[in-house]
Amino acid sequence: MDFLNMAQLLEEKKYLKLKDELKDGQSFDIAEFIDSLDERQALLAFRLLPKGVAADVFSYLSVDRQAEISDLVNEKELADILSDLYFDDKVDLLEEMPANVIKKILKHTSDVERKLINQFLMYPDDSAGSLMTIEFVDLKKEMTVSDALDRIRRHAPNRETIYTCYVMDEARHLEGTISLKDLVLCDVDTKISEVMQVEPIFVKTHDNQEYIADVFKNYDLIAAPVVDNEQRLVGIITIDDIVDVMEKEATEDFHRMAAIEPFDDSYLNTSILVLARKRIGWLLVLMISATLTGLILSRYELALESVVALTFFIPMLMDTGGNAGSQASTLVIRSITLGEVKFKDIFRVISKELGVSLIVGLALSAVNFLRIWLIQGYDLTITLTVTITLFFTVLMAKVIGGILPILADKVNLDPAIMASPLITTIVDTFSLIIYFSVATIFLNI
Amino acid sequence: MDFLNMAQLLEEKKYLKLKDELKDGQSFDIAEFIDSLDERQALLAFRLLPKGVAADVFSYLSVDRQAEISDLVNEKELADILSDLYFDDKVDLLEEMPANVIKKILKHTSDVERKLINQFLMYPDDSAGSLMTIEFVDLKKEMTVSDALDRIRRHAPNRETIYTCYVMDEARHLEGTISLKDLVLCDVDTKISEVMQVEPIFVKTHDNQEYIADVFKNYDLIAAPVVDNEQRLVGIITIDDIVDVMEKEATEDFHRMAAIEPFDDSYLNTSILVLARKRIGWLLVLMISATLTGLILSRYELALESVVALTFFIPMLMDTGGNAGSQASTLVIRSITLGEVKFKDIFRVISKELGVSLIVGLALSAVNFLRIWLIQGYDLTITLTVTITLFFTVLMAKVIGGILPILADKVNLDPAIMASPLITTIVDTFSLIIYFSVATIFLNI
Repeated sequence: MDFLNMAQLLEEKKYLKLKDELKDGQSFDIAEFIDSLDERQALLAFRLLPKGVAADVFSYLSVDRQAEISDLVNEKELADILSDLYFDDKVDLLEEMPANVIKKILKHTSDVERKLINQFLMYPDDSAGSLMTIEFVDLKKEMTVSDALDRIRRHAPNRETIYTCYVMDEARHLEGTISLKDLVLCDVDTKISEVMQVEPIFVKTHDNQEYIADVFKNYDLIAAPVVDNEQRLVGIITIDDIVDVMEKEATEDFHRMAAIEPFDDSYLNTSILVLARKRIGWLLVLMISATLTGLILSRYELALESVVALTFFIPMLMDTGGNAGSQASTLVIRSITLGEVKFKDIFRVISKELGVSLIVGLALSAVNFLRIWLIQGYDLTITLTVTITLFFTVLMAKVIGGILPILADKVNLDPAIMASPLITTIVDTFSLIIYFSVATIFLNI
Repeated sequence: MDFLNMAQLLEEKKYLKLKDELKDGQSFDIAEFIDSLDERQALLAFRLLPKGVAADVFSYLSVDRQAEISDLVNEKELADILSDLYFDDKVDLLEEMPANVIKKILKHTSDVERKLINQFLMYPDDSAGSLMTIEFVDLKKEMTVSDALDRIRRHAPNRETIYTCYVMDEARHLEGTISLKDLVLCDVDTKISEVMQVEPIFVKTHDNQEYIADVFKNYDLIAAPVVDNEQRLVGIITIDDIVDVMEKEATEDFHRMAAIEPFDDSYLNTSILVLARKRIGWLLVLMISATLTGLILSRYELALESVVALTFFIPMLMDTGGNAGSQASTLVIRSITLGEVKFKDIFRVISKELGVSLIVGLALSAVNFLRIWLIQGYDLTITLTVTITLFFTVLMAKVIGGILPILADKVNLDPAIMASPLITTIVDTFSLIIYFSVATIFLNI
């Protein structure tokens, strides 16, 4: 879509022409356009949308824009938008709107729906309950395919997906599923009970969203039924929400692995105070842990005074150890997340990391030996001290980096906390101990 | 599924009973079961699968198991599996099998198909061409809805998705799309041209998979058509493959951000040699860069000799600076990946990071001041030198961490290389310069 041209049409008050442009656009694009306008223009453009499209565009708008528009439109318009929104989008909206808007919205919500909304709002934030929607096609197993297709035709416009239909008994227990594909392929007189899949994949209301994403991924689903503790069907989750979950979970892992506590909104939309609060905790913990390195160094004050050159290599040794350890821990953390590495694999991980660190450690030490001895011209004892330390530091870093995430996972901690920052701090301490142990032998200090 | 029970049935040669168990299982679960068996048992279990299910289970097996089974089954069985596999799975298979198996497979491939396979194998690894499949329902705009449904019924069993159908002209140009939902809802005599969506979202054969994943995410698609340079429809991509792409892209980013070159297979299945090769490059570059810190330290040899206590705080200062910088760079890298931060936002990022580092820097410095002065009992000049350095190090680290990924992105480098390892090395160098500049002022050295 040509946003510039459309903004100009709006500026020049050529509303009919703009209305025509908007008619064929994708909801996501139109929402992006409306998000880019100022408040007054946004409302104008939003009002030009065809009735059926408005709610869909609304669901793609930024939270701030949604609040503005909900606040500015009249009661009738708001009622129209709300009646067209899918239930999960409506619940999301209520979670994020300011109080005055919530009040306005609830006025247009029936008692039944209000009760249901309250129930949905009580599910934990990252559970199936908070992801599901109630707009699905429910069938009875006594129906024929022809009955089922009739029912789908009647209800399809208000259902988020019709490609999988759900068969329930009188007490709303999930009995099976049937895809629209199978319905279209079957003879119209066939009974649903004969063609439905009887052991469908389902998730429970309190299942965690990360687990649900795995279920979708493994079974290549485009929708999944959600049941409560009594196996009653209460909603469905569709793949578009799972795609968002996958992205959000990845973002959380990235943040956690950089020692940042996860937060909900985007970086640019998050205030400096919140950003600072999400970062300072780990920085403090890591800084205080790092004072251990200072204590080790002060124990070797005399050695450092007599051979000050030892100091020059400390940053390089620490950095290389930290990097080597971070590589191992990142590989293992990601493999745990993907379900590829489990506790029983711990010895395979150790032997892999030992193997890798032998190769990498030898290569790095060799390069360093040549550089320190030949190019920088230090004497052989210092050169050997540094290169031997480097070798063992890489070895130790890779093994620690490989083991700690597995152990964390074993005791039900998030393995992602065993990432670069914490590993670096741990490895630094050990590398200094190695350094001065080797130095004591070679330099007689 | 109860794997233990099933393995036992296999052991006790109760094949009929096992066959019954397998009948209702999900392909993914059965594949997991077969992957867990030894070679002989795996072949046995695989042969118990119903004909329609075998190919689907086969597509979920591990590459090694696929190679074994392709090698062990007879010609007739292999032909059956291959004829039931979707085209994209067949191409993937040929990319990964050893030469003897490829030869065997190609024997069961028609000339036309072989030509097409060769063409598909030539698309770049991470392009739309390598993700797409050819099994889609194509319609003509002159058809009625009733014609279309007939055609769908005839072809559905061999089509990967029938939920979106593609309307092409005689020259195979993409003219529009229509969903099965709309077909089911429309009157059967309606012309396709009247109800199809005329400006469908599409991708091009050479589009990058990361871009395609964004298209699916933004427009909530479950399938997308792929066109060649002449706008001819050559295939479709379905959401299940995009879910895999999203996971693979996230894994690559995690690896790249830990200074590991991306690799294809899982960690445990990758050899020590390959793992070492993927890590050593960056470790070497970073290690050699870190020697700069040694040069800075040696310039201040006299200062370090006279006030050896200065050395004790170097690791803590470097670690904290590195962590502060990694937090900023991780946040910005991820925001760039998600399309939330662009080059034009650089000043917003700088001001955010300045704000955050003022708060965080002051807090960390205050804690450090108390610890060094009151608890450890160092004199005021050293305490001030360390705490002032800490403050400016955090400030510098956060701003550098925030800016570098944006600049990398601007010059078309992957922003992910500006992550923890590289930022740490850069920040280390600057923090030492700050340290000794402050020390020179306070300690008269």
